[in-house]
Amino acid sequence: MGLLGTGVIGGGWAARALHYGIDVIAADVKPEMESWIRGAVANAEPALARLTFAPLPPKGKLTFTTDLRVMAERADYIQENIPEVLELKQRMLAQVSRHAAPDVIIASSTSGLTPTDLQRDMLVPQRFLVAHPFNPVYLLPLVELVGGARTSPATIEAAGIFLRYIGMHTLHVRKEIPGHLTDRLQEAIWREILHMVNEGIATTGELDESIVYGPGLRWAAMGTNMIYHLAGGESGMRHMLAQFGPCLKWPWTKLEAPELTETLIDRMVEGTQEQAAGRSIRELERLRDDYLVAIQQVLRQYNIGAGATLRAVEERLYRDAATHAGDLAEDSGTALHLIASVRPDWIDYNGHMSDFRYTQLFGEATDALYRKVGIDQAYRDGGHMFYTVESHIKHEGEAKAGDPLRVDTQILSVDDKRLHVFHRLEHGISGATIATGEQMHLHVDNRAAKAAPMGAALLAKLDHLRQAHAKRPRPAEAGRHIGQANG
Amino acid sequence: MGLLGTGVIGGGWAARALHYGIDVIAADVKPEMESWIRGAVANAEPALARLTFAPLPPKGKLTFTTDLRVMAERADYIQENIPEVLELKQRMLAQVSRHAAPDVIIASSTSGLTPTDLQRDMLVPQRFLVAHPFNPVYLLPLVELVGGARTSPATIEAAGIFLRYIGMHTLHVRKEIPGHLTDRLQEAIWREILHMVNEGIATTGELDESIVYGPGLRWAAMGTNMIYHLAGGESGMRHMLAQFGPCLKWPWTKLEAPELTETLIDRMVEGTQEQAAGRSIRELERLRDDYLVAIQQVLRQYNIGAGATLRAVEERLYRDAATHAGDLAEDSGTALHLIASVRPDWIDYNGHMSDFRYTQLFGEATDALYRKVGIDQAYRDGGHMFYTVESHIKHEGEAKAGDPLRVDTQILSVDDKRLHVFHRLEHGISGATIATGEQMHLHVDNRAAKAAPMGAALLAKLDHLRQAHAKRPRPAEAGRHIGQANG
Repeated sequence: MGLLGTGVIGGGWAARALHYGIDVIAADVKPEMESWIRGAVANAEPALARLTFAPLPPKGKLTFTTDLRVMAERADYIQENIPEVLELKQRMLAQVSRHAAPDVIIASSTSGLTPTDLQRDMLVPQRFLVAHPFNPVYLLPLVELVGGARTSPATIEAAGIFLRYIGMHTLHVRKEIPGHLTDRLQEAIWREILHMVNEGIATTGELDESIVYGPGLRWAAMGTNMIYHLAGGESGMRHMLAQFGPCLKWPWTKLEAPELTETLIDRMVEGTQEQAAGRSIRELERLRDDYLVAIQQVLRQYNIGAGATLRAVEERLYRDAATHAGDLAEDSGTALHLIASVRPDWIDYNGHMSDFRYTQLFGEATDALYRKVGIDQAYRDGGHMFYTVESHIKHEGEAKAGDPLRVDTQILSVDDKRLHVFHRLEHGISGATIATGEQMHLHVDNRAAKAAPMGAALLAKLDHLRQAHAKRPRPAEAGRHIGQANG
Repeated sequence: MGLLGTGVIGGGWAARALHYGIDVIAADVKPEMESWIRGAVANAEPALARLTFAPLPPKGKLTFTTDLRVMAERADYIQENIPEVLELKQRMLAQVSRHAAPDVIIASSTSGLTPTDLQRDMLVPQRFLVAHPFNPVYLLPLVELVGGARTSPATIEAAGIFLRYIGMHTLHVRKEIPGHLTDRLQEAIWREILHMVNEGIATTGELDESIVYGPGLRWAAMGTNMIYHLAGGESGMRHMLAQFGPCLKWPWTKLEAPELTETLIDRMVEGTQEQAAGRSIRELERLRDDYLVAIQQVLRQYNIGAGATLRAVEERLYRDAATHAGDLAEDSGTALHLIASVRPDWIDYNGHMSDFRYTQLFGEATDALYRKVGIDQAYRDGGHMFYTVESHIKHEGEAKAGDPLRVDTQILSVDDKRLHVFHRLEHGISGATIATGEQMHLHVDNRAAKAAPMGAALLAKLDHLRQAHAKRPRPAEAGRHIGQANG
């Protein structure tokens, strides 16, 4: 892959192509851009490395030249990423087309210029197209493909094959229009934002909040049309247009709407029906809800946007639970019960709960035990914590999506450094054992990074629970090794 | 909480409030809406139940009445959700205000009508505000709070406390404007979409793709302003405005932009600087990249949007790896190695890799072994698979974010039904053992749901590997039980 221009977009293209094993030759008139683009590739690597476990080919090699001609002669696919100035792009593209073999595809990353204008002075303009990516190019899959008046269909097809190879989603924009499709939608939002900031109605931060905590979450996997189809209830887009059609006359944006003719209504309804592909509103709602839940759990880990909201309410819930001890199943006397259910994203390709979710559940149950005896963030911040040093899981049944679950936790032994815990995961209704988990935890001093005795008060609380649990029979599954017969 | 009107929005409010332990009394003139709203609450429950592990109070109770007056007299907070017709809303809100005690807050869910108009005929209009939620109300945290000319600040504050209690993110819209903030932005996109569909430029599906695979992913946690701040490189929003300012004159949308005055530029730059809160562009980029990776992994589980793209490229990578066996570390001869690194989202509050990620890694290593001997989706579709029946993990070291990892896999024994596997997780560079994992897998017939012998060809492949691995010493950690001394 050859790159003409090496800014944020050129650097993103380089990182993506190299990651998928494609050699890249980057051309820029400024020699200092060599270290810049190498830096950009290095910055992209940590994120790219985490995207998939699938086996990647060896990374491509990056070379740099200040000579456009060297790049054009060596590359088998050329992507232009220079500033958005029509005359400049026309001149440089014409020049590149004179040095590149006639079968080499030349693409422009332009955000909004149209391909017919850009290909005007090129040699073999048939092999030219717009391939418009989005920042960060190495992580966002979208690329818009737009042909000009003289672009051949084979060019669009071949470019699509290459771009999908490097992990992208190709969207063929069938008609040339300034801004293509995506930037028309982004630009409409952007100009509305500028109007509102200009008129002193809201700050940039408030306007960002208005996206991030609401429609932005939905847009991560469904577009405006599908979302409105779902908002229309059982009759979908048609109902939506009937209900909100009159609002098109209201000044809800500075943008005038087209007239809602029968033809337009039909196009909107037929389009969304095709998108729904036979799935009912109910089905689509479940899909939407599933991803909305999962995304909020992801954002929670980064304490950002809706994830920060979720984390804040959880902290309040834990505080409330601690205040009203006894109200909750988790916290009644000396018995330790964790109530949960099997989340759909816990299911593997066999339709059963993935192995590692058992470990997660037993970990949650251990965390509940810690909370019970007062080991919280403040305790951890004080420099001490328990670490799991050994664990054993025995599977006795299966769990399916939605199954109610209960984890019963028992302390088998405790001394000032070691805590031996046994969990039994049961079906919430039948009570049948699904799995057992046995763990040895070590109390450690984080700073010294070694085992350290816990305080007498904590040991007393844990030992109080152990004594209560000792009245119950010792679990048959405790102390097993792998390969041991059942019984 | 009292509800006036029980459509999609009223149902969403009910589900959210009940979930957080608030009793709800819903009023609708149509008696058939009682079963409708109970159905809506039941439909929301599976998603809500998966949102958090935090301990929830007992669910609230839902009652229904066709008598607006009964609702208004009993509720301590009333939310109106009737159709978007100004005169109708004015009349009903006035009526409710006559039956509710003067200190009861009354809020409207209106998408775009302004509170000064709505509160016109109310008794005690000071306790009225707009509280505009987003569909699905039970999952999206955003709620816009807007006061009218006669709304008291105390009303906005008290409503905010209640709405945050039920898990929402309150955005105070400081100036009344048709469409508030969010719907102005959504409506700008919506009208641009209608123009493009009307002019035959694109279908609803293509326009949705243009969001979902690109900007929509970004919008799940950062708004347009912050995203453009990042796109501007090191000098952020100011550079962005200089670079893309001229585009405001171009016809990239049907919406005319305001003039880019110095005042407007300053407001945009100061606003985003405040949002960045001292974080550098690099820092914000890492945050953006982290959530973009994590969201794509979530969407991958649902095979939707960018997750479907990721899944498609992974399938191709696995196929390629199978074709070019020997090129990859995972698949050289009889040795079984999985190469990975510690993802940042694998880190727990102690800064170390969470326990359950060890299980996940050993699971991935087992999957690599399966692929090696030809157990793939087709094999699973044929009705047979291995299940883990018992596993044992021993921790010997620690892994931190970004650490390179290597899993070495050894078959300890195999017969026609049982496969005994041992994994050693090592630091990718030092080679130090971080943990060991021992597993017993059972070959099962999915349909009969019981153990079944595997075919001779598969057994031969596995036994070939076992023989090769038997030349290595038996791992010291194999066959341990919990509580056993090290040695």
